Amino acid sequence: MTSDLPVLLAAVSILSAVHLAFQARHVGWSRMKHKIMPPTVTGPPEFERTFRAHQNSVESYSIFLVVLWISGIFFNEVLAAFGGLLYIVGREMYFTGYIRESKKRLPGFYLVLCALLFLTVMATVGIIQSFLDKYLNIRLL
Amino acid sequence: MTSDLPVLLAAVSILSAVHLAFQARHVGWSRMKHKIMPPTVTGPPEFERTFRAHQNSVESYSIFLVVLWISGIFFNEVLAAFGGLLYIVGREMYFTGYIRESKKRLPGFYLVLCALLFLTVMATVGIIQSFLDKYLNIRLL
Amino acid sequence: MTSDLPVLLAAVSILSAVHLAFQARHVGWSRMKHKIMPPTVTGPPEFERTFRAHQNSVESYSIFLVVLWISGIFFNEVLAAFGGLLYIVGREMYFTGYIRESKKRLPGFYLVLCALLFLTVMATVGIIQSFLDKYLNIRLL
Repeated sequence: MTSDLPVLLAAVSILSAVHLAFQARHVGWSRMKHKIMPPTVTGPPEFERTFRAHQNSVESYSIFLVVLWISGIFFNEVLAAFGGLLYIVGREMYFTGYIRESKKRLPGFYLVLCALLFLTVMATVGIIQSFLDKYLNIRLL
Repeated sequence: MTSDLPVLLAAVSILSAVHLAFQARHVGWSRMKHKIMPPTVTGPPEFERTFRAHQNSVESYSIFLVVLWISGIFFNEVLAAFGGLLYIVGREMYFTGYIRESKKRLPGFYLVLCALLFLTVMATVGIIQSFLDKYLNIRLL
Repeated sequence: MTSDLPVLLAAVSILSAVHLAFQARHVGWSRMKHKIMPPTVTGPPEFERTFRAHQNSVESYSIFLVVLWISGIFFNEVLAAFGGLLYIVGREMYFTGYIRESKKRLPGFYLVLCALLFLTVMATVGIIQSFLDKYLNIRLL
């Protein structure tokens, strides 16, 4: 019944969602550590870096989901799931690096960019193939 | 034609999207009430609580959509839709509580957490079942 | 194989994701121009307007994706894709207008609202039709 569902995309999505929720939790711990009560979002540099690191993950998360699922469904599920894992690793490096020092967010940032670019290229190729097939009856390869 | 589509998940998603848009509108009303022109995001405590309450909804909304749809498609649509309604109720309690007083956001926060946990557990079980079936040909139950 | 996939929705989604990523990039350029290092998010009015214009896009992006896909799958893919293009045009007007002056964000804001309303009405009609068909065996038209 469910054997044709894209279970790898679903698994990577759940993993990324739990990872993002964990980063939100981390901001809560940083609030307690530095005694910063909501709704305040300013404070010691370490708190502000933690807060912004999480915000940056939130800002790109919907973009990630769009390119993950479209590349997985229109191009190749295994490659998309692999790109999704790279993205999650990059997000983790970004977050833990940023908390220590602003500059240390950069290696994770570049890995996140690479993963998103990889997924976007696959998604675009898949859409072009699918569009040509559906509307112009042209089958590449 | 459309009779096999997950209409309950779609209905809960639209409801949650309209609810989130309504919270954004509420921030706009709070701007007018307190005469705070964009792009300013600081001001009297009530405005800052309203602003942060909406931000918090935005931060978790993509996570919610991921666990709602994956639990609904890979596990059980009716249970997922029920969990989705719980989430929306929790978000409403969080928002209206937070606007009055920071501490009053907590009951809604715990309901939101319960709903997300419920959906995440269902999604995870559904993914494991589907993975075993698809890649290892093992059918549980 | 992929000829029944909603390729127009996918194409509009990728376009909107790339557009949102470009706005994030624009905030980075504004940081460099005004020499504002992360995690700082305050500074000259032009930077703050650029920052908030991107944030506003992020806040509504998940709502957009929900109403785009549900209206496209439950009502009509071509009309939904058209509404999606309107939304992207509105977001571009909002962003470039807001950077110049806070008031100049309004034309784009109203176009975004119209596009979201259009998509939400189609999604709601599609859900009602699908619900009546699936659970009550009633077919309208």
